[in-house]
Amino acid sequence: MRIVVLAGGIGGARFLLGLRAAVPGADITVIGNTGDDVTLFGLRVCPDLDTVMYTLGGGIHPQQGWGRADERFTVRDELLEYGAKPQWFTLGDRDLATHIVRTQMLHAGQPLSVVTAALCERWQPGVQLLPMSDDTVETHVLIEDPDAVAGSKLIHFQQYWVGLQARPTALEIRAVGIENAKPAPGVLDAIAAADVILFPPSNPVVSVGTILAVPGVKEAVMAAAAPVVGLSPIIGGRPVRGMADKVLTAIGVETTATAVALHYGRELLDGWLVDVVDAEDAEPVRAAGIRCLAVPLMMSSVAATAEMAEAALRLADEVKR
Amino acid sequence: MRIVVLAGGIGGARFLLGLRAAVPGADITVIGNTGDDVTLFGLRVCPDLDTVMYTLGGGIHPQQGWGRADERFTVRDELLEYGAKPQWFTLGDRDLATHIVRTQMLHAGQPLSVVTAALCERWQPGVQLLPMSDDTVETHVLIEDPDAVAGSKLIHFQQYWVGLQARPTALEIRAVGIENAKPAPGVLDAIAAADVILFPPSNPVVSVGTILAVPGVKEAVMAAAAPVVGLSPIIGGRPVRGMADKVLTAIGVETTATAVALHYGRELLDGWLVDVVDAEDAEPVRAAGIRCLAVPLMMSSVAATAEMAEAALRLADEVKR
Repeated sequence: MRIVVLAGGIGGARFLLGLRAAVPGADITVIGNTGDDVTLFGLRVCPDLDTVMYTLGGGIHPQQGWGRADERFTVRDELLEYGAKPQWFTLGDRDLATHIVRTQMLHAGQPLSVVTAALCERWQPGVQLLPMSDDTVETHVLIEDPDAVAGSKLIHFQQYWVGLQARPTALEIRAVGIENAKPAPGVLDAIAAADVILFPPSNPVVSVGTILAVPGVKEAVMAAAAPVVGLSPIIGGRPVRGMADKVLTAIGVETTATAVALHYGRELLDGWLVDVVDAEDAEPVRAAGIRCLAVPLMMSSVAATAEMAEAALRLADEVKR
Repeated sequence: MRIVVLAGGIGGARFLLGLRAAVPGADITVIGNTGDDVTLFGLRVCPDLDTVMYTLGGGIHPQQGWGRADERFTVRDELLEYGAKPQWFTLGDRDLATHIVRTQMLHAGQPLSVVTAALCERWQPGVQLLPMSDDTVETHVLIEDPDAVAGSKLIHFQQYWVGLQARPTALEIRAVGIENAKPAPGVLDAIAAADVILFPPSNPVVSVGTILAVPGVKEAVMAAAAPVVGLSPIIGGRPVRGMADKVLTAIGVETTATAVALHYGRELLDGWLVDVVDAEDAEPVRAAGIRCLAVPLMMSSVAATAEMAEAALRLADEVKR
């Protein structure tokens, strides 16, 4: 079975752990969001790709959900002694080696997809991990800022998300460079050849939304023979984790499982899983022609997540007929 | 008193500790060798500048003489896991932060002299540390290699020195890029304004020799009003430390205190200090018109090194008259 997953960071990575456990023999291609990539201290950091790679490769900090287990911070401490900026993003020593290897390869002219494959040779994630694009796309957020001349300013997503903890009101989300981005080699082929396409409980705006916004990707998903099934990242009107409500509000979408499904729409989704607490509110999803089921969606363990993945695959099988 | 010192790594740095102790109020400008600079893992490493900066700034590993005290190697271990090359050069975590800051500034378009000054803001070495040039000069070594088609091959100095521990026979030393290198801002002015110019017991070929080979530097030293005094890095026919004999042999100079003095020559040197064990062999130096004294030259402590520096300054005072 060929499964394609459009994944962001923590939510996508944890879902993939469950999916891999549910269908050990499956051929899984992960199309990873690179819109939150950022250059820090001259090093290219790809938080979402790395979270997927570390999680599936056994190197992730398990409680935190991002970064490396047993991490050290000697280099960070030294960078602080030099007054190096920014100080709102911490790179651990183990994690740093990944960015050093990546940056060296990128500077040598290798595309990000080749670099990612090289890094995965170490981690053996058991999936094919593709960046959505080899071209640089960086998500920026227009935030309210009373001190700015225009009353707002545009900052990198990481500065908004990590630096400012998503506190300022987000007015607009812009994926800078996306108009000219091409899908990375293998992305469109994987979508076309898929037996199932899954949207895991990743951020619908700055993760799955950014991947879909790469010219050609949304069209490929819509044209794919495979059924497309999504899992709601919103449970009971709140993001399972993270601050997805902030960026949903910025694009005028309510923070509900139903609103997110309708935002994707029937043109993309064949099936949609909501949590059991949202079962009664899902009627508009069905009314839109999207098959909708309610199952427990808390990824509290790999086993619980595997059950979610199985439910998604069963739903895909149903909508296919 | 304005003192200019042409310094390599460990020998130069340890001498400077003694010089600073001997004349606490002096205005010391260090012109540092950058010929052994190397790009490793995409990061620009300046071993000699850093050794001077760390030594005078109190961050050096005291026994080792290079690298940081209380160093950690988490990033190195991770780079090995990725199979990153080269594996013969180890960068510690603390040291790495210096290279990250430097590389970021260089990529942003700052010249090495500005970068070095910025790094020194943290370390406060108590001297003005100038790279010999803002232009890239890299010392390469032509080594005997029976496996190579020509019977020899050209490798970076660090690969020869650190990677191969200077074991292969060195046939030739080439400072790649030096023809087009310009002295860094401040270098020629410092030499012209100096009251004393010192050659510390640094490597006469790949440290002091490379600095002097930057077009304009040797000429400026020869034209300077200040007396020029050197301290022999060779004691009893052997380098005080390191493998200077290997590169001296490559340029056809014997590994003796006298041969090194005659290699610099009367055109550069007004005075020369040899160790007491070499006192009786120094007649050819005097015959060449270079004032020569024998004093203990083992830098066994800062106090002993300060006495060497005082002897050098006294000799400079004598030859001035």
